[in-house]
Amino acid sequence: MKQIRREHHLARTDRAALDSVLDAAAVGTLATVVDGLPWVVPMLYARDGDRVVLHGSTGAGALRHVAAGAPAAFCVTLLDGIVVAETLFESTANYRSAVVRGNLTVIDQPDAAHALDLMSDALIPGRSSEVRSSTKKELAATLAIALPIEPEGWTVKVRDAPPPRPEAQADHGGWAGVVPLRTVAGDPVPAPWVTPETDTPESVRRLIKGT
Amino acid sequence: MKQIRREHHLARTDRAALDSVLDAAAVGTLATVVDGLPWVVPMLYARDGDRVVLHGSTGAGALRHVAAGAPAAFCVTLLDGIVVAETLFESTANYRSAVVRGNLTVIDQPDAAHALDLMSDALIPGRSSEVRSSTKKELAATLAIALPIEPEGWTVKVRDAPPPRPEAQADHGGWAGVVPLRTVAGDPVPAPWVTPETDTPESVRRLIKGT
Repeated sequence: MKQIRREHHLARTDRAALDSVLDAAAVGTLATVVDGLPWVVPMLYARDGDRVVLHGSTGAGALRHVAAGAPAAFCVTLLDGIVVAETLFESTANYRSAVVRGNLTVIDQPDAAHALDLMSDALIPGRSSEVRSSTKKELAATLAIALPIEPEGWTVKVRDAPPPRPEAQADHGGWAGVVPLRTVAGDPVPAPWVTPETDTPESVRRLIKGT
Repeated sequence: MKQIRREHHLARTDRAALDSVLDAAAVGTLATVVDGLPWVVPMLYARDGDRVVLHGSTGAGALRHVAAGAPAAFCVTLLDGIVVAETLFESTANYRSAVVRGNLTVIDQPDAAHALDLMSDALIPGRSSEVRSSTKKELAATLAIALPIEPEGWTVKVRDAPPPRPEAQADHGGWAGVVPLRTVAGDPVPAPWVTPETDTPESVRRLIKGT
């Protein structure tokens, strides 16, 4: 099986490719170094122009450490398809991945309130205009952090192609191709206290159509 | 918006929960430390009993470094739903995530051949019995590495619940609930050289049914 980073021509160097990958996913993996060891955590995020914004609880010790200027790497991966070749060796995956490297910084108010709205709208587009703004107490309980997107600070790889044909003629024959994968939304499940006559909000209807 | 690690009661400590998360995903993020900085890469993987097996090209420098006993953390995240609360602050995601921490080791032959078959079958179940085994040349070009699953070396978090109800009565009202997300396979796309009369293999038919 071909490892997904093997094909080096898959690297994309245009900034639009980075933005497109970052804007397509909702969750990524934040990595940093704590006491010399790698430390990772999955996080919801949003891209805000030239930065990735993330948020954590102000009570989370490790995250506070991360936010204090520590070097970080943030990785986003979308698995787009399973690439079935005529041999195991040439089989692989179609995917989009981005890594952003830099030093995290804490976002102060009032910028933090903006960043948090942006993260909400990345997860549930339009939701921030349907409900009240976050209160001071809520904002105080949330640590908004930013990872700057710097010119040399990111890598993008995209594989979007049929399987490679095996070199040996003897291996040719049989089926080969791609099984595309995509994420779809199911029917929304109302919380137990929501009465049947309550309208599903526009943001939720859009989520279902949009996936 | 509630960050996905906020609710500490989400931790699962039974090994079956770890196996279940690891066995449900195909791609994860491997993190290590290179020159004091965090280094991350998305990787296809499989669980093989008490270890996570990964593979890379023997030509990949950074991966060779990783395989040389460096401390690593491997993170897998499945986004299962969007949790729409009555406030932005209480909105979050349903997810399953696992982090395995340990030191990577290179897998030698003949164990490596077994590990590579296992990785193929994790991506395309049953495919290894439909095509020939990997050749010595193919095996020599592939670096199989293992991350041991040790008793204290992993963490699992699972959120699978309705939105939290906001504390303030004033915030109650309107719709709240979960939009479930799942990954589905589309119609397989044959490679350009595959003739229309070529049968889709059983493994590919299973992939489509299984997602």
